[in-house]
Amino acid sequence: MSQEHLSLLAAIIAEKGITHAVVSPGSRNAPAIIAFSRSGRLKLTSIPDERSAGFYALGMAQQLGRAVALLCTSGSAALNYAPAVAEAYYQKVPLLVITADRPAEWIDQGDGQTIRQQEVYSNFIRKSFHLPVNNSTPANHWHFSRMVNEAVDRTLFPARGPVHLNLPLAEPLYDLQLNPEPGDIRINKLIEVEHRIPESALQELVAQWNKAGSKLILAGQLPPGHDLKHWLCQLADDPSVAVFTETTSNLHVPGSIRCIDRTIEGITDEQLPGYTPDILLTFGAAVVSKKVKALLRKMKPAQHWHINPDPDDFHLDTYQSLTLTIPSEAAVFIRQLAAVVTPAQSDYRACWQLLSERHLIKHGDYLANAFFSDLTVFETLFRQIPDDTHLHLGNSTPIRYAQLFDEASRYATWSNRGTSGIDGCVSTAAGAAAIGKHPVTVITGDIGFFYDSNALWNNHLPSSLRIILINNGGGNIFRVIPGPDRYEELEPYIETSHRFNAEGIAKNFGVNYYSAGDQPTLLKVLPGFYGKQNNNQPALLEIFTPAVSSAEALKNYFKFIVS
Amino acid sequence: MSQEHLSLLAAIIAEKGITHAVVSPGSRNAPAIIAFSRSGRLKLTSIPDERSAGFYALGMAQQLGRAVALLCTSGSAALNYAPAVAEAYYQKVPLLVITADRPAEWIDQGDGQTIRQQEVYSNFIRKSFHLPVNNSTPANHWHFSRMVNEAVDRTLFPARGPVHLNLPLAEPLYDLQLNPEPGDIRINKLIEVEHRIPESALQELVAQWNKAGSKLILAGQLPPGHDLKHWLCQLADDPSVAVFTETTSNLHVPGSIRCIDRTIEGITDEQLPGYTPDILLTFGAAVVSKKVKALLRKMKPAQHWHINPDPDDFHLDTYQSLTLTIPSEAAVFIRQLAAVVTPAQSDYRACWQLLSERHLIKHGDYLANAFFSDLTVFETLFRQIPDDTHLHLGNSTPIRYAQLFDEASRYATWSNRGTSGIDGCVSTAAGAAAIGKHPVTVITGDIGFFYDSNALWNNHLPSSLRIILINNGGGNIFRVIPGPDRYEELEPYIETSHRFNAEGIAKNFGVNYYSAGDQPTLLKVLPGFYGKQNNNQPALLEIFTPAVSSAEALKNYFKFIVS
Repeated sequence: MSQEHLSLLAAIIAEKGITHAVVSPGSRNAPAIIAFSRSGRLKLTSIPDERSAGFYALGMAQQLGRAVALLCTSGSAALNYAPAVAEAYYQKVPLLVITADRPAEWIDQGDGQTIRQQEVYSNFIRKSFHLPVNNSTPANHWHFSRMVNEAVDRTLFPARGPVHLNLPLAEPLYDLQLNPEPGDIRINKLIEVEHRIPESALQELVAQWNKAGSKLILAGQLPPGHDLKHWLCQLADDPSVAVFTETTSNLHVPGSIRCIDRTIEGITDEQLPGYTPDILLTFGAAVVSKKVKALLRKMKPAQHWHINPDPDDFHLDTYQSLTLTIPSEAAVFIRQLAAVVTPAQSDYRACWQLLSERHLIKHGDYLANAFFSDLTVFETLFRQIPDDTHLHLGNSTPIRYAQLFDEASRYATWSNRGTSGIDGCVSTAAGAAAIGKHPVTVITGDIGFFYDSNALWNNHLPSSLRIILINNGGGNIFRVIPGPDRYEELEPYIETSHRFNAEGIAKNFGVNYYSAGDQPTLLKVLPGFYGKQNNNQPALLEIFTPAVSSAEALKNYFKFIVS
Repeated sequence: MSQEHLSLLAAIIAEKGITHAVVSPGSRNAPAIIAFSRSGRLKLTSIPDERSAGFYALGMAQQLGRAVALLCTSGSAALNYAPAVAEAYYQKVPLLVITADRPAEWIDQGDGQTIRQQEVYSNFIRKSFHLPVNNSTPANHWHFSRMVNEAVDRTLFPARGPVHLNLPLAEPLYDLQLNPEPGDIRINKLIEVEHRIPESALQELVAQWNKAGSKLILAGQLPPGHDLKHWLCQLADDPSVAVFTETTSNLHVPGSIRCIDRTIEGITDEQLPGYTPDILLTFGAAVVSKKVKALLRKMKPAQHWHINPDPDDFHLDTYQSLTLTIPSEAAVFIRQLAAVVTPAQSDYRACWQLLSERHLIKHGDYLANAFFSDLTVFETLFRQIPDDTHLHLGNSTPIRYAQLFDEASRYATWSNRGTSGIDGCVSTAAGAAAIGKHPVTVITGDIGFFYDSNALWNNHLPSSLRIILINNGGGNIFRVIPGPDRYEELEPYIETSHRFNAEGIAKNFGVNYYSAGDQPTLLKVLPGFYGKQNNNQPALLEIFTPAVSSAEALKNYFKFIVS
């Protein structure tokens, strides 16, 4: 049986803009690997652990802004992609997940590496396709081509995300007749559209905006380099408008509050009305700050407008106050709005800025006298990491600490805040570094690092990659969130890795290892860590911090801020 | 809000026979961890990587013959269980998979660690339950109790496998009012039944059996220690009956053919009719031998009876010859059959035995002159590993080599042949060793080892565990199966780990490391490796074998066998 449809697959996805494929070794998918390789139009990277491969492809796709193809063998391989697929779904990162399969007649007939792969990602996928087993009839050819075309487009429209192509392959697998360029490549195109609010509807919103004495804009996660900033600055040049920008928003306009957790700490119920906006305007993806979610849920602003063109997210009501979904791109709507609204007399913005400045001074005072802990380590890192670095912030400790430092906004930041799992932060950073646009540093906690240590089992780690591992003995997040510290019986189940450091793993995989356990050592090793590595390998810096007192330091920090 | 239903959960599952829970750290599931811990009736083990935790629990459940509970936090944690859940489904191992979740009203509302968890395992689960968020009303209490009761029973009846309990928990998570023993525990019992063939139907099958001049019995995977052997011996004491027992069947009756691949190698189309049975009788789970599957599919025996009480496997037609499904336990039906059939005059058994003996002699001749390779390493191991060891055989190389050695049947064997993935073999062995009934050795290839290296990131590795890692530089299985060697472009995608050995990982996690790269060293280190470790840690033996010549040696072995 000819497998020429595999050449067709490679040709169509390349023609539709896919340039990179991350493949994992296997037998069932080997013919497709060969076809991808022979196409000459796809850059292939081999990653053996599909869990890591999935996140590596995600990291590549974040940088490219278009889908990266994943290709694995049949069976549980596909399930190991699931964490990255779910992350891509919720973070809205385009991925084309191709899983080789047996033909339908061989499912559940006792053969190895065979599971029911159709709809296996159904809870977290844009669309799933089950391809015909070959393109031997005109109908098959048309069906196959049409589905591959649609699959690539569905990774981008109407919203970005992962799409599943299940690819059954019949035996003999290796009797290939691969044409490098099949004659009949059918390309169906799809044009990108902007979602603009019609003039009449816009006028009504403008009237409400102008009438409102206080507007709070909250920007969630956005990739760096978007074209929103100019219009947001114009909209925010208004004393009645306060702007909160999370570290992950990569969007910092003059006067915006970048350290939300620090700023809003200690607002009492009595003070609440003074800070409650008439209109809350939100856009971007996930918001990291649990404190701002809790605050806004308590405030219940009279109006909450959420800008989001993704049909899967209509009626996303994070603050239990949603009044209006604006199914538009944030840049499009804010440009429309900013062009026509008028500033209002108000002390609303000033009120937030006063609070922000008061807490910033406290922040400085606290850190000036702080002992070595997770908190001071982050302060040091955000001063010392080179400016042009793209920072990947692991879950959950690193991303939460970053939110406390204005300096973190010096960097382009990335974080897997779709599902907010700890499962693939280092692999994601490795994939981003492989694209090579920018130097990449990932900051991870010890649980996140060990969880994803197969990120290092990889023959393609770029030498520019820097991994900073803050090892506080594991699971400190559970000491910091309110509650668990009152239950001593939890201790054995949160202290998961205190016996281990990462030196052996780093050496095992040829990654240069640096370590520090105090401030002077940290300052001493950082230049070498960021310098050129003689052996052209990536480098890992493990910083040992005290577990219990780091958790204490953070709690005391927040007490001190409001004291 | 009281979380007393969590005490109820712990009490019901303990009352219904669950003794062990494998928990992974998290916030959403922390109240359940506390409740499980306070129940005093569950032995808790904490494993941070849910992928490894899933397989660890699977390994425990294999030994216990009843469900082990898994408990993880919300979000992608649940997805990391998926490979083990699928393996448990296809291997028929009872698992109770408990995933903490947010209440339904908070799904897809922008909060972290939140995915659509309901039905997330739908392609490979016995049954899924979505529990009520508390038991505060009598209806809730009844509903909650009833579902937990059913969930535990569905891990065992009508067939073993994984069951999913999705457990939404409302905030505040840590305002617990946990009663150690809730007053109103409702237990619904379910009695085990045997599936017996009625006398009239049996008589008809007996008549066909007695009439048939040749019967081939093929035993697939079975756990050690089942009660089938006596009756199978009686049924097989018949010259018209040949018995094939795979290594994983743990069932070796006098005269049975234990090395199927070696025996059937080289049977020509002309010889086929002489070996084709009138009736093929099969039972047990997965069959490893691809060669016997191909042979039987070519033979197409006139009748194929498959014994299997699992409704999910009715009409399982592995050999494209199925004529009769016998929905009974193998031990029950074979006892019924053996008690009444009569032996027939035939040279069918002798014919197979002659072939088997001829190839056994060739096997000995070949190995007597073989250089050091994967093949000779397995020969050595099956002579040197202590007798009372339970062997865990990784996918796919170790399990396939084991099938070539009669000596492998000295050991109780286990292998994840449900999905036949490489993803959790070491973790499974670690879980089995933790139960402590037997000393456990796992034999794994290098890809399987590195894939699952988080098996070692575990504070609970029993000192009795022995890990034998055969490092041939990665992916040699793809050199051995027919086909890929003809495509040089596959080389970079199958050679996945040649730069790496496991010493650093072993040292990282405090596992004693041994290594050997030739036969004398191997023989020298084995006694120390199997001896008591002074530091009471488990031990890992890495055996370096030549990649290309190991693949050649295996190909030449099969050529020599039939020469």
